[in-house]
Amino acid sequence: MATYGLIEYATASPEIREVYDDIMATRKTDYINNFWKALAAHPATLRRTWESVKEVMAAGALDPLTKELIYLAVSATNQCGYCLASHTAGALAKGATPEMVGEVLAVVGMANETNALAGGFQVEIDERFKTQG
Amino acid sequence: MATYGLIEYATASPEIREVYDDIMATRKTDYINNFWKALAAHPATLRRTWESVKEVMAAGALDPLTKELIYLAVSATNQCGYCLASHTAGALAKGATPEMVGEVLAVVGMANETNALAGGFQVEIDERFKTQG
Amino acid sequence: MATYGLIEYATASPEIREVYDDIMATRKTDYINNFWKALAAHPATLRRTWESVKEVMAAGALDPLTKELIYLAVSATNQCGYCLASHTAGALAKGATPEMVGEVLAVVGMANETNALAGGFQVEIDERFKTQG
Amino acid sequence: MATYGLIEYATASPEIREVYDDIMATRKTDYINNFWKALAAHPATLRRTWESVKEVMAAGALDPLTKELIYLAVSATNQCGYCLASHTAGALAKGATPEMVGEVLAVVGMANETNALAGGFQVEIDERFKTQG
Amino acid sequence: MATYGLIEYATASPEIREVYDDIMATRKTDYINNFWKALAAHPATLRRTWESVKEVMAAGALDPLTKELIYLAVSATNQCGYCLASHTAGALAKGATPEMVGEVLAVVGMANETNALAGGFQVEIDERFKTQG
Amino acid sequence: MATYGLIEYATASPEIREVYDDIMATRKTDYINNFWKALAAHPATLRRTWESVKEVMAAGALDPLTKELIYLAVSATNQCGYCLASHTAGALAKGATPEMVGEVLAVVGMANETNALAGGFQVEIDERFKTQG
Repeated sequence: MATYGLIEYATASPEIREVYDDIMATRKTDYINNFWKALAAHPATLRRTWESVKEVMAAGALDPLTKELIYLAVSATNQCGYCLASHTAGALAKGATPEMVGEVLAVVGMANETNALAGGFQVEIDERFKTQG
Repeated sequence: MATYGLIEYATASPEIREVYDDIMATRKTDYINNFWKALAAHPATLRRTWESVKEVMAAGALDPLTKELIYLAVSATNQCGYCLASHTAGALAKGATPEMVGEVLAVVGMANETNALAGGFQVEIDERFKTQG
Repeated sequence: MATYGLIEYATASPEIREVYDDIMATRKTDYINNFWKALAAHPATLRRTWESVKEVMAAGALDPLTKELIYLAVSATNQCGYCLASHTAGALAKGATPEMVGEVLAVVGMANETNALAGGFQVEIDERFKTQG
Repeated sequence: MATYGLIEYATASPEIREVYDDIMATRKTDYINNFWKALAAHPATLRRTWESVKEVMAAGALDPLTKELIYLAVSATNQCGYCLASHTAGALAKGATPEMVGEVLAVVGMANETNALAGGFQVEIDERFKTQG
Repeated sequence: MATYGLIEYATASPEIREVYDDIMATRKTDYINNFWKALAAHPATLRRTWESVKEVMAAGALDPLTKELIYLAVSATNQCGYCLASHTAGALAKGATPEMVGEVLAVVGMANETNALAGGFQVEIDERFKTQG
Repeated sequence: MATYGLIEYATASPEIREVYDDIMATRKTDYINNFWKALAAHPATLRRTWESVKEVMAAGALDPLTKELIYLAVSATNQCGYCLASHTAGALAKGATPEMVGEVLAVVGMANETNALAGGFQVEIDERFKTQG
């Protein structure tokens, strides 16, 4: 169970309700994920985290689905069970096909493998990779 | 320095040269990254890893640039210095703009933050996220 | 289930009981966490780990609650479910308030985010940070 | 070198200078860490990250030094070289003694050890740890 | 539940059955782990991953049990619950004794501890460790 | 540079010298790794860590080389540069051949890949893996 339980809308303070309202309006849903209900135990963290997620995940140079797939990639690397469940749902809701999810996870698996190999063989960085951008 | 040094083309065995040739042909370059030159100390790992990377990173349901950005996301999460240098170079070579790289890293940062928060607050998985696909 | 099950006091060897007794005496409790009962499958690891934990977590330059909060921070970063459950309980037992736990997790989330950003942007260490202490 | 280099105050846009000014005013210093100068390649990430760090690291239920020590604990767990250098400097600047830093790292080491042991022995969570807060 | 469910032999495509058949023949069993049944949602990843695992885990300079113990060490470090369950079973099936598993996990715990300490104390690499092989 | 520098034998306190003497006697060498010289800034951590490493790495159900290879596997997974350098040296000193190191790293790479895949596909644990030992 979440450390301080889940705070439902009905019993939430006005400060928390304001965030919940913005989540529902932004995402066009009447559902609040357990993640937010658990963070509500510390309202400042709830508000700040939501505002950051809202800004970061909005369409920009990358579309929202690509951002969701990147979220999935990080969550798989970190073995975060909750995050894998919620961001897999998020990716599917945004139109990810089994083929796309399969390819994301194939890349994630390969990246974790070669990350360990690069470290393990103590490979030094190529001169040409040292100046970029 | 790489554990067993870097094996250059000039001194490589035919088995290793065959992989190097395929890397250069596939990538349309005459440059072999230090990563492959270090793995060449164990030819079976060099060959298997290259064949897997070649297959996984080819265009499919996701385009090669998106795959490179996912590689970058995993490498940043794992703090793999070599991988960050080589896959940042890879992303830039495939046309990533500063705005795109900035957004990828913003998502990666946010995902690492909320992964830690979801774990830290011990959030239980929403029922609706338990059946997917 | 734990790999080798949980070894209860009633059926434990004298070597294991001695550790269990010290845990209960040091912590002023009659409860032994599952962690120790699982480690008891390898008595040398049980004894060594307990002695180290006992020494490290004792009051010193830092008070026991601060140490428990640091334990929580590491456990959230590592996504260790068992450790999060037991050290959250430990922190609450030592007097951590919701506000304190919330602030710890906010710092942990932020640190995981900026760790990924510092790696991702390949930031070089400032000269002034290279000589310290 | 940072992916897009370091943006110095003299050549920064007004949007970036505003953040730099706030960093210097808040921290009562005329020095801007490389971290911020590298993030400035993506001004939205620079601004959002600084605002979050400023809010999270301010004195609250925990004092700033304790927060800095938690930052250090996470950075050591993640093997983030840049973060270790900058937050060790931050902790020392806020008055951490060698004894305090030694105890933080001792706890961090122990937590990483027992995290791996709890996972490795597949320890199930004690019933009493499942309801908290 | 696995993202796309588990694909059983009875309903699998010929492409998937071919992999399942090879797994059962290679391992001399009629049981297919959930891992493979879940990967079957993306047949290319199923095939490639199995072929790599088959090659890497075969007897070579290291015997299969030692390889399984190394798999266990990585899985404990990564807090991968599924992997810990399946590779603990694998190690026991290959003859690992409680004493061996206990020693593996003791080394894994210690390595995770000293990894964090080496990073935390910012230890520079000894000159004599820079040239090896 | 190490946070508090490296404490050399000539200037070490009797408490530190006692540990250094035991390291040199146990390992039959007159060389002290930087790791120990850096930990000496906190003598209690130096002593406790050395005693644990000494006990854990001694021959038992597993031989010292196998233990060293497991140390290498964890260090590669954690991207610990110092640890990779020192434990690669340790493995080579204990007789590891390039073929053995190559196979260890191949297993480590594969384990990191399948760990991410098992998490990413949200694979549930097989019933038969839930009771072991």
